Amino acid sequence: MNAREFRRRGKEMVDYVADYLEGIEGRQVYPDVEPGYLRPLLPTAAPQEPETFEDIIKDVEKIIMPGVTHWHSPYFFAYFPTASSYPALLADMLCGAIGCIGFSWAASPACTELETVMMDWLGKMLQLPGVFLAGEAGEGGGVIQGSASEATLVALLAARTKVTRCLQAASPGLTQAAIVEKLVAYASDQAHSSVERAGLIGGVKLKAIPSDGKFAMRASALQEALERDKAEGLIPFFVVATLGTTSCCSFDNLLEVGPICHEEDVWLHVDAAYAGSAFICPEFRHLLNGVEQYADSFNFNPHKWLLVNFDCSAMWVKKRTDLTGAFKLDPVYLKHSHQDSGLITDYRHWQLPLGRRFRSLKMWFVFRMYGVKGLQAYIRKHVQLSHEFEALVHQDPRFEICAEVTLGLVCFRLKGSNKLNEALLERINSAKKIHLVPCHLRDQFVLRFAICSRTVESAHVQLAWEHIRGLATDLLGAQKEEKAEIES
Amino acid sequence: MNAREFRRRGKEMVDYVADYLEGIEGRQVYPDVEPGYLRPLLPTAAPQEPETFEDIIKDVEKIIMPGVTHWHSPYFFAYFPTASSYPALLADMLCGAIGCIGFSWAASPACTELETVMMDWLGKMLQLPGVFLAGEAGEGGGVIQGSASEATLVALLAARTKVTRCLQAASPGLTQAAIVEKLVAYASDQAHSSVERAGLIGGVKLKAIPSDGKFAMRASALQEALERDKAEGLIPFFVVATLGTTSCCSFDNLLEVGPICHEEDVWLHVDAAYAGSAFICPEFRHLLNGVEQYADSFNFNPHKWLLVNFDCSAMWVKKRTDLTGAFKLDPVYLKHSHQDSGLITDYRHWQLPLGRRFRSLKMWFVFRMYGVKGLQAYIRKHVQLSHEFEALVHQDPRFEICAEVTLGLVCFRLKGSNKLNEALLERINSAKKIHLVPCHLRDQFVLRFAICSRTVESAHVQLAWEHIRGLATDLLGAQKEEKAEIES
Repeated sequence: MNAREFRRRGKEMVDYVADYLEGIEGRQVYPDVEPGYLRPLLPTAAPQEPETFEDIIKDVEKIIMPGVTHWHSPYFFAYFPTASSYPALLADMLCGAIGCIGFSWAASPACTELETVMMDWLGKMLQLPGVFLAGEAGEGGGVIQGSASEATLVALLAARTKVTRCLQAASPGLTQAAIVEKLVAYASDQAHSSVERAGLIGGVKLKAIPSDGKFAMRASALQEALERDKAEGLIPFFVVATLGTTSCCSFDNLLEVGPICHEEDVWLHVDAAYAGSAFICPEFRHLLNGVEQYADSFNFNPHKWLLVNFDCSAMWVKKRTDLTGAFKLDPVYLKHSHQDSGLITDYRHWQLPLGRRFRSLKMWFVFRMYGVKGLQAYIRKHVQLSHEFEALVHQDPRFEICAEVTLGLVCFRLKGSNKLNEALLERINSAKKIHLVPCHLRDQFVLRFAICSRTVESAHVQLAWEHIRGLATDLLGAQKEEKAEIES
Repeated sequence: MNAREFRRRGKEMVDYVADYLEGIEGRQVYPDVEPGYLRPLLPTAAPQEPETFEDIIKDVEKIIMPGVTHWHSPYFFAYFPTASSYPALLADMLCGAIGCIGFSWAASPACTELETVMMDWLGKMLQLPGVFLAGEAGEGGGVIQGSASEATLVALLAARTKVTRCLQAASPGLTQAAIVEKLVAYASDQAHSSVERAGLIGGVKLKAIPSDGKFAMRASALQEALERDKAEGLIPFFVVATLGTTSCCSFDNLLEVGPICHEEDVWLHVDAAYAGSAFICPEFRHLLNGVEQYADSFNFNPHKWLLVNFDCSAMWVKKRTDLTGAFKLDPVYLKHSHQDSGLITDYRHWQLPLGRRFRSLKMWFVFRMYGVKGLQAYIRKHVQLSHEFEALVHQDPRFEICAEVTLGLVCFRLKGSNKLNEALLERINSAKKIHLVPCHLRDQFVLRFAICSRTVESAHVQLAWEHIRGLATDLLGAQKEEKAEIES
């Protein structure tokens, strides 16, 4: 394919994309396919001779689309949102065309420098304190990671290196293994599974701190765990505080947990993967209070709720040398003349992979084409819709709300057994008019209703609720009949 | 921006991309900017109100392009190639629009299933043995990772888990730390820095095996290291063999190293990040011989040399449970009804991040629009161009070739001191007509000439060589004058 054909096909693809997104409401949100549906539809091997674009685009509709879960449908209320916006799609086209691999400043100076400045812009939107920004001569700064999982792992590894070096400096005879064996990381029992995974990868113990009645990590439980572990000769070194947990969007108490980490000289990583986007609104910013004094690193995902398509996970550290110190290796083929000037950033030292795309273009396009006010309006609309759903649930005495609704997630259930609620979810996801996923809160099986799509409106929420209520009525009716039959 | 405006701006962007790639030869391959150039060109914070697309696209040319290193310029001969093709760009647009986060089968069945089939297609192109393919009921299979660094790390972590469990099963009293402390991984002294990094992250020792005169890891050196370490009570558990090293594209001797790993029950990971693409040509496939019997995992980057834009790093394992066993954690919100059926793949258990893009679309578009023959022709053209450059170097008695030219990389230097060659490189990269990076081979400073661009032709290679020769003549002349001045 040459440039001439790309001009033609590219424009056809732009129309296909616009048609898809404009018409997404008409597609069934969750597919009908069964596992293994796709393989029989494709040849067993790649073709020897080239095929045409027409053949392929026909197959997209015939083979791919029937197996797609439509995350951007206004009837998708599962997981958490994943961002999608036209400005981000445009920026991604440009990113693909430039196609630089920005592992060092020299590998494409614009790629590195735009990222640093965009992370400063975003940090300012969140009112992050200056210590997290790169500015012209700051010690901190931001980096785009691929996912919150990677950010947590990078923070844990940096903390592991820091504490190990510190203890070895004090007792030069200590081996790394002898130290790592005693290290303990902590997170709430509501923290994301990727935190547990980071512990596994880093080879350190991870302890779950029992959360309180509002599913928040509090001072007392953390302090207790720390004391117990220290008494046993273990070394607490890392705490993850979650702002907006995956199960129910609860918030660890940063103003309680932070001072303990500070006092114990433990690295505090704040994971606000979903909720972080909301902090650009002044009315939600208080949820981040404490980050200033207590956090060593902070992360959230603009690719969830800030209209920047995946992947774009924003991470800031107060001391960038903490990250670079954990990873820095400098082979000759990556050296360049500005490297030791102290003026530049080589982002490969901040992350796990070596290569990286020019992802800051997406931020730049989105921030400029929406403006801060447009982004704030977007967040507020989603929060308002979740409260609208919450109010609907409250009006029906058969249902209950299971956790405080702060942002765009509503956790609810039928009053009754887990089995009943599992049956309700089964009916919802079999009907495939809307798509939800469940969670466990303590021993309760709970349904999660997350406001996700960029195009979701009040009408969709209302329809979704009527649909859920209808299915609940059917379910409860069927159960009553069953019971009557057994009794008669 | 609504769909209507996206249709208009998307088509403008398609033209911008086509113009950029068609005209890339006219742009200076390496930028003139100094560190910190970009910040003063941008506002200090994001705008409050939306800006227009026109404003932004104007700024791309004014602010971004002057700081871009043009990786797809036919005068770019640095690092290794990074793939770029029109079919991949089209697929990426579709991937962005679908915007699913394919962490599990249910999260978008097509995303998972196309990946499994595409990895089988690609495995067959390379004549990988069936044991590496998923097929309908295989124990192996392929996964798209973000980078070779991640693939190496994932393999190392899987091997670490496997050996730890095995030793703990034999001696239940052994702690993980006691085992990890004794684990040793091995790679050639020519291996990529990401291997050393994987060792650092995994908390295990990594030992560099001295390579032979052709920069290859051989049996004797590996065997010697293993014996020495075992005698000291250490536990060898992981070997990385590199096919196509970064410095000079040398090849570890798989048929020698493999049997040792097999005998010692050590995990063998084969990293062919750059060279792997060439194995789709029968005449280069012999370089992979041994993978059948001896390798536990194999990885190469279609995003380097197989026309699939970054990121797309292809990794296969013989036993997928080795990977999933190392990472598997199952929170309720990610459970789905097909999960325990054994029929499906949840790729989140195969990788470090949780989220993942629909990257297999790029493979599907590229494989079909080029056909295997088109891809083979592309590889052969690059190899032929590197031999053309090699022949030119041979014709000039002032220069020498420093390592065997097998694929698309030529390592060469002026006969003489390192200082002389550093000065030559300095002249080349200051002139900015072409772009090269150096490497060290033992204690020699060497220039790397890598065939990179999709559009590079013989004429560009000839011009590059004339340019290098001219600069060498100037340099040697200047040195002679200097010497004469000192002597007179």
